[in-house]
Amino acid sequence: MAEDNKVGTYCFTAEPFHVDFTGKLTMGVLGNHLLNCAGFHASERGFGIATLNENHYTWVLSRLAIELKDMPKAYENFSVQTWVENVYRLFTDRNFAILDAEGTPIGYARSVWAMISMETRKPADLLTLHEGSITEYICDKDCPIAKPGRIKVDDCMPCGSHQTKYSDIDLNGHVNSIKYIEHILDLFPLDMFKEKRVRRFEMAYVAESYYGDRLVFYRQQKGENEYDVEIKKNDEEIVVRSKIIFD
Amino acid sequence: MAEDNKVGTYCFTAEPFHVDFTGKLTMGVLGNHLLNCAGFHASERGFGIATLNENHYTWVLSRLAIELKDMPKAYENFSVQTWVENVYRLFTDRNFAILDAEGTPIGYARSVWAMISMETRKPADLLTLHEGSITEYICDKDCPIAKPGRIKVDDCMPCGSHQTKYSDIDLNGHVNSIKYIEHILDLFPLDMFKEKRVRRFEMAYVAESYYGDRLVFYRQQKGENEYDVEIKKNDEEIVVRSKIIFD
Repeated sequence: MAEDNKVGTYCFTAEPFHVDFTGKLTMGVLGNHLLNCAGFHASERGFGIATLNENHYTWVLSRLAIELKDMPKAYENFSVQTWVENVYRLFTDRNFAILDAEGTPIGYARSVWAMISMETRKPADLLTLHEGSITEYICDKDCPIAKPGRIKVDDCMPCGSHQTKYSDIDLNGHVNSIKYIEHILDLFPLDMFKEKRVRRFEMAYVAESYYGDRLVFYRQQKGENEYDVEIKKNDEEIVVRSKIIFD
Repeated sequence: MAEDNKVGTYCFTAEPFHVDFTGKLTMGVLGNHLLNCAGFHASERGFGIATLNENHYTWVLSRLAIELKDMPKAYENFSVQTWVENVYRLFTDRNFAILDAEGTPIGYARSVWAMISMETRKPADLLTLHEGSITEYICDKDCPIAKPGRIKVDDCMPCGSHQTKYSDIDLNGHVNSIKYIEHILDLFPLDMFKEKRVRRFEMAYVAESYYGDRLVFYRQQKGENEYDVEIKKNDEEIVVRSKIIFD
């Protein structure tokens, strides 16, 4: 297969209510676009969620790492490219490039997905799905950012909490993957975003949380500009781990 | 001018992370689309925010009322039509129709806007703007829902509060108009949205709030399915009034 057909390209405009006070697209909105692009790319190639649902399987996002030199400004056009880097038995690596209006890369992202049965919640074997056809889309396009790394918060005092509400809950009855990103960035004061920008943002989705769960946030500074965050639900089970590196 | 050219039509798809747990588009996302459509329609006709900014004027949303028979479901296509109903010296009425994938109206919205000078924050005279050219777009298309009405919460105990955070703040340094919609719906328990749906949602934007403000929510039930909400900042000044009617 031609490498070209393996890469999906999708165009966007940074909407005025999707930028933060600095006029740049928010990380949550970018994350939402990336997940949509993953969906478009998979659907167009026959392994999207609509096709899978018929077979009672669904994609589950496990890791997401985004690293950026810049963010689109309000009203600017940009595009997202996505492709499959690797397929293993239980996981697939999907990468992204974020391009500015001129087509110059301003950032990249890496994601790791599993497929589970909606009945048993058990992982499916990706190499046998559709007779392994997903492997035909493996593409060696460059993604020059580090893979998601280890995130670990030592015992520390909580730095915030949030009782999940109606707006947090998605189609599957879980807290929306994107809402966690917003809640994590909200742990930092506005001045942080005046002086610095987020260069790298990592999410590890460990477990689901639900309506009414009390999310408790733990944050540990790991370097001058680096923070690890853990979210626990009901103060016991870890739901999400995240690393934020400012510049 | 032909009536056709007075109406702008914009197409959307309900994104999977933009629907709530019932699989229907959220009111906040719909509100965002309506505000974007207002922007597109005005820009295309020479009175958008980009043109105005050059002249140091900007549009300010004063009222928004949305009434719906249904909401688009995840992955469904829908479209939004918008047109100018009236132009007065200090306000303009802009209406919307929300159409399903077949082009059948599933809801309507009404909005009221003022234009202010970004230097003095004083309102501008819309009838003299661009030699009154905005009045050429007045269109008598039907909008069969009630105009925004009176919203009044009697003295009562607060039912919630929220300290504004990074994600609440928009390009202008104010709390994002859409975020208020989310915070207001979050006052209701999830069960409310299981048993009922929001038929009508009204917002009156009274004053701006800023980063670090403490928003306090007051809610009064006005009928079996009708609630008025007031948001005060720092427990004194009213920022937003809202009416929610369930069905």
